[in-house]
Amino acid sequence: MLVSGRRRLLTALLQAQKWPFQPSRDMRLVQFQAPHLVGPHLGLETGNGGGVINLNAFDPTLPKTMTQFLEQGEATLSVARRALAVQLPVLPRSEVTFLAPVTRPDKVVCVGMNYVDHCKEQNVPVPKEPIIFSKFASSIVGPYDEVVLPPQSQEVDWEVELVVVIGKKGKHIKATDAMAHVAGFTVAHDVSARDWLTRRNGKQWLLGKTFDTFCPLGPALVTKDSVADPHNLKICCRVNGEVVQSSNTNQMVFKTEDLIAWVSQFVTFYPGDVILTGTPPGVGVFRKPPVFLKKGDEVQCEIEELGVIINKVV
Amino acid sequence: MLVSGRRRLLTALLQAQKWPFQPSRDMRLVQFQAPHLVGPHLGLETGNGGGVINLNAFDPTLPKTMTQFLEQGEATLSVARRALAVQLPVLPRSEVTFLAPVTRPDKVVCVGMNYVDHCKEQNVPVPKEPIIFSKFASSIVGPYDEVVLPPQSQEVDWEVELVVVIGKKGKHIKATDAMAHVAGFTVAHDVSARDWLTRRNGKQWLLGKTFDTFCPLGPALVTKDSVADPHNLKICCRVNGEVVQSSNTNQMVFKTEDLIAWVSQFVTFYPGDVILTGTPPGVGVFRKPPVFLKKGDEVQCEIEELGVIINKVV
Repeated sequence: MLVSGRRRLLTALLQAQKWPFQPSRDMRLVQFQAPHLVGPHLGLETGNGGGVINLNAFDPTLPKTMTQFLEQGEATLSVARRALAVQLPVLPRSEVTFLAPVTRPDKVVCVGMNYVDHCKEQNVPVPKEPIIFSKFASSIVGPYDEVVLPPQSQEVDWEVELVVVIGKKGKHIKATDAMAHVAGFTVAHDVSARDWLTRRNGKQWLLGKTFDTFCPLGPALVTKDSVADPHNLKICCRVNGEVVQSSNTNQMVFKTEDLIAWVSQFVTFYPGDVILTGTPPGVGVFRKPPVFLKKGDEVQCEIEELGVIINKVV
Repeated sequence: MLVSGRRRLLTALLQAQKWPFQPSRDMRLVQFQAPHLVGPHLGLETGNGGGVINLNAFDPTLPKTMTQFLEQGEATLSVARRALAVQLPVLPRSEVTFLAPVTRPDKVVCVGMNYVDHCKEQNVPVPKEPIIFSKFASSIVGPYDEVVLPPQSQEVDWEVELVVVIGKKGKHIKATDAMAHVAGFTVAHDVSARDWLTRRNGKQWLLGKTFDTFCPLGPALVTKDSVADPHNLKICCRVNGEVVQSSNTNQMVFKTEDLIAWVSQFVTFYPGDVILTGTPPGVGVFRKPPVFLKKGDEVQCEIEELGVIINKVV
């Protein structure tokens, strides 16, 4: 069982490597721990699936959390760029534990029904306005952490999503200015308890979306200048190796700029806030018959250029 | 206009003072600012409506934010108790700016339809399970701050609510153990954009509840041992001096213990998390004809023993 799990992990990493064109100077910011370090540290993943450079060792004045790093804006980003430009010791991947690239943000904003093809799958019209809900930050876990199946739900489903990470505070942000507020992008598994979404809690989605461990994120915050086009990336989800979702972020109804403009009419965005931008078709609940996650399943959520997160269901 | 506003403020404070029995050794924790101090500080309100003792001056090793104060548990609470027991300089109320007693918590949990009399008002059955939704922490403002009427809503309504402040981390907390996780109680105005709750955003309540400034909190975190019975407190809301909501927390369907037990099935609670426990009848939307807040209105939300928050609508 364990051997098979490891083999799947290896296969996934190899698959990730096969995707073309990984510029070697991509900035892939991570939060990580290592046995010889006390507490979480900031690092740079050396390419998709590579080892980690310890940014706090490179410059001990840098903050140790991503939120604080982002709050300092260009000052800290330029340090990270300098670290990319020189040869630095790389911690092998086997020696580090990856944390979510952002932990305890002020907001985890989620968007419903935001893929044209996902709307078709449900036979519902494409929304005219974004549908916004949320998870609590306490649901965030690391890119290779376990998803705990809660006994309260019998219908836990998968959803791969592109995540926008906010880098700069703002309110009433115009769509044309929105990218200036984006730090970068990462991958989420928006784990969803369908029974709680559709039949419980007065149909308010929060509880079904926010069980502890229901928001794996990572592996890295890939800065916006390292992503060719965030709205033209292959996005897929595999359960036990089988492809269950496969689409492209070009199917998003409301793109990054629209979402930031929309939500910032209501709330002030802070550095570290994340927006889960919705999922493509292929979720379990719409299969015939429906399929849900069970203990022992392994879910891989992958987005081109960004990477893959691999979460075992326990 | 300004004079009349000040007179109403004075009347409200006098009304607050008339409520019986304010034990002089109540622990009323506040976050505040003062012109001669840099940044937010922790303090003790010397009775409901009284001046403020600077806890950070009493013990410079104390943290300056409530969340950090609560995270240290008994260690910091015992310092605050010592400060209560001695004569210390009191900053006059006129010299301090009160902040929300908790800012940027991990979670702002809200409960819908949680007063028996509020359910009767809507002619809907009393829920069998709590209905849980949320605000973003970015909506929190201080007890005397302004509520900004957003141009996106034509139906902004008032809701006074009792707030539970979590003092200790926990998951799967039993109702019988729940009070051990409570730091204390405070008052909220759960400002609500009815049009967004009932007709927009796919009927997900988040956006209509989470506009910036839609969560005034305060004035103090009154520790649980300073409150005789949190489930037997007069609760009322006045708009421009007229009583619009008047009930008692004994009308709550799910009490503090039930709510903590319920929500902690889903999520881990952290120190500083707040639970807004629902509102009594008398909201504007159910009046005939409906009444909504307009610029220049002044809303007072008051709970016996806890205090009054006063927010002008601008």
